[in-house]
Amino acid sequence: MIKIAVAGYGNLGRGVISALGKNRDTQFVALFSRRPEEVQKLVKDVPVLSSDKMALPQGLQIDVVVLCGGSRQDTPVQGPWFAKGFNTVDSFDTHADIPAYFSRMDAIGKKNGHVSVISAGWDPGIFSLERVLGDALLPGSKGYTFWGPGVSQGHSDAARTVKGVADARSYTLPIENALQKVRTGQEPEFSKRQMHARKVYVVADEKADRERIRKEIAGMPHYFDEYNVEVLFINREEMVKNHSAIPHGGFVLTTGTTGKQRTRQILEYRCQLQSNPEFTGSVLVACARAAFRLREKGSRGCFTMLDIPPAFFSPHSEEELRSHFM
Amino acid sequence: MIKIAVAGYGNLGRGVISALGKNRDTQFVALFSRRPEEVQKLVKDVPVLSSDKMALPQGLQIDVVVLCGGSRQDTPVQGPWFAKGFNTVDSFDTHADIPAYFSRMDAIGKKNGHVSVISAGWDPGIFSLERVLGDALLPGSKGYTFWGPGVSQGHSDAARTVKGVADARSYTLPIENALQKVRTGQEPEFSKRQMHARKVYVVADEKADRERIRKEIAGMPHYFDEYNVEVLFINREEMVKNHSAIPHGGFVLTTGTTGKQRTRQILEYRCQLQSNPEFTGSVLVACARAAFRLREKGSRGCFTMLDIPPAFFSPHSEEELRSHFM
Repeated sequence: MIKIAVAGYGNLGRGVISALGKNRDTQFVALFSRRPEEVQKLVKDVPVLSSDKMALPQGLQIDVVVLCGGSRQDTPVQGPWFAKGFNTVDSFDTHADIPAYFSRMDAIGKKNGHVSVISAGWDPGIFSLERVLGDALLPGSKGYTFWGPGVSQGHSDAARTVKGVADARSYTLPIENALQKVRTGQEPEFSKRQMHARKVYVVADEKADRERIRKEIAGMPHYFDEYNVEVLFINREEMVKNHSAIPHGGFVLTTGTTGKQRTRQILEYRCQLQSNPEFTGSVLVACARAAFRLREKGSRGCFTMLDIPPAFFSPHSEEELRSHFM
Repeated sequence: MIKIAVAGYGNLGRGVISALGKNRDTQFVALFSRRPEEVQKLVKDVPVLSSDKMALPQGLQIDVVVLCGGSRQDTPVQGPWFAKGFNTVDSFDTHADIPAYFSRMDAIGKKNGHVSVISAGWDPGIFSLERVLGDALLPGSKGYTFWGPGVSQGHSDAARTVKGVADARSYTLPIENALQKVRTGQEPEFSKRQMHARKVYVVADEKADRERIRKEIAGMPHYFDEYNVEVLFINREEMVKNHSAIPHGGFVLTTGTTGKQRTRQILEYRCQLQSNPEFTGSVLVACARAAFRLREKGSRGCFTMLDIPPAFFSPHSEEELRSHFM
C-alpha cells in the first residue's frame, strides 16, 4: 500500500480523499491542515496534522503528500516546504510560472532525495500531454484547446468582486461552431471571442443596480472584456439548487497533414467532467502512485506528467498492461 | 540529426519516409528491402540494402531501423534480426502475441545493447496509451474502443479470398447510436454487432454468382459473421476512383464515476485519419526519436508507448515543452 497524506481540506482535498478510497493500492494516512484541531472534528479516521510542522506522530509513515491548496497563495509556499521532507504531488496551474516552479522543486527534490510531480490534473496535466503528443505525432500541425462547458472558479471569483454582487458563478462555454470548423479539417485563426463565450449567474444585493453590474462584469479587463458575456440574475435558492456542482471539461484538437497530397489527420481529446475537483483528485492519486514508483526506481527531483511513462500511473503491472490494454 | 533507416517499401514504409521529411531532427539514410536492386530504381536518394545482410556500406551510420513489414509474416522475423544490430521501431499489431514478442525483443535488445520500441502506431499505440490512462485516472471505469470509419486491410484481404471476387474493400463502421450511449454517460454491455458494422465493396468476376458471394462474405466466421454486413458490387473503375485511399480512425472512451454521489466523468479520444499508413508512419518516426533518446540515456531492451515519457516523442526540449505546452 502506498501511504498518502493530503494537505488541505477544500474541494480538491476532499476529491483526493474520495479517490484514495477507490484505488486499492493506496491508503489515506494523514491530513495536513492550517487549522488541525478544527478539521480533526470533521475527519475522524486519520490524524490531522499542522501543515506548519514537519514532525510526524510516532509510527506514521507517509510515502507521498498530495498538495491541495490554491495555486496562487498556497502551492508556491507549500510545495517547497513539503518537498524537503516528502515526495509530493500538486496541481499548480499558473501556466506562466510553471518553468520557474519546476526548477525550484527540482533543486529541492534532488537535494533532499524526493520526487515531486507538479502541475498535474487535466489542464495542466492530461491536456498538456495531449498537446505534446499531437504536436509530436503530427509535425507542423496546429493545436487548439477549448475549455468547457464548465465552471471557472477564477472568473466566478472575479465577478464576485463587483459591488452589489452577493454571489456569482461563471461558466466557460466553447463555441460549437468553432469546434466544428477544426473537427472538419480547417485550420482557422481564432480570436478569444471566437472560441469561447461566458455566462455568469449572479445573485445581486437587493438594491443593487443590475445594469451597472452587468456592464462592470462584461467590461472587466482580461477576465471578461475579450468574450461575449451573458449575465443572468437569479436568486439565492436557484444558485444553491442549480449551480452547486462544479462541472468542467474541454477539448484538445490537433489538425495537420501528412504526405505530398497533404492528407488531413485530426486528433481530438475530450473530457466531460461532472465534478472538476473529484476528477482532478483522481488524477492526483494516479500521479502519487507514479511519484512513489519513480522514487522507488531511483529517480529524484521534479517531474510533470510529460516526463512520466504512462504505465507508472496504472495500478496494473506492466505485464497485465501488455496483455489487456495494448 | 537522428539517422533513420526504413525496412520495407510498402504503404507503411512510404508513410515513414514521407514523415521523415517533415521532422527536422531526423534524416532518412537507408532503405532495407528484400528486393534491393529493384527498389533502388525507385528510390534514388539513399542506398537500398538487402534486408538479409547486416553489413553496411562504409561510412553509413544508422541510429534506428523502422520496420515496415507485415505483422504476420515479416515483423516476427525482422524484429529479432534487426534488433541484434540496431535500435528498432515496429508496429507489430497481433494483440494476443504482444507479450511474447515483447519478451523476445527485450532479451535481444538487452543482450546486444539496443532499444526496441514495439507495437507503435495508433492501435496498438496511442489507443493503448489512452486505454491505460483512462483506467488509471478513473479507477473502476469502463473502457470502450470503437474503430472506423475506415478501411480494414485484414477484412478486405479476407473478402478477396471468396471465389469470384476480383477485388474487395471492407470498411469498418462504428455504430453512432452505441457511441452516443457511452458519450452520454451510460455503461452498456455491447455485442460485437452492436458496436460495429461492415460495408464491403466488391468487384466481382463477370460470371460470378453475386448472391453466393454476398452470402459467403457475410458468413465468414470471425471476420464477418458477428456483424451486420452490407455487400455492394461496383466496377473496377469505381474501386480505383473511390476506394484507393486508406482512411481509418476510431474512438477510445472511458466512462466512470467518482465520489459518493457517483458523479459521472467521461474521457474520449478520437482520431480521424485520411491516411492510415501515413499517420502510422508519422507515429513511428516520433517513436524512433524516443528509441534514440532512450538509448542515449542508457536504456536497453524493449519498450511500448506505455513505457516512454511523452516528452521523449517530441522534437522540442523539456524546457520548451514546459514553457509552451503545459
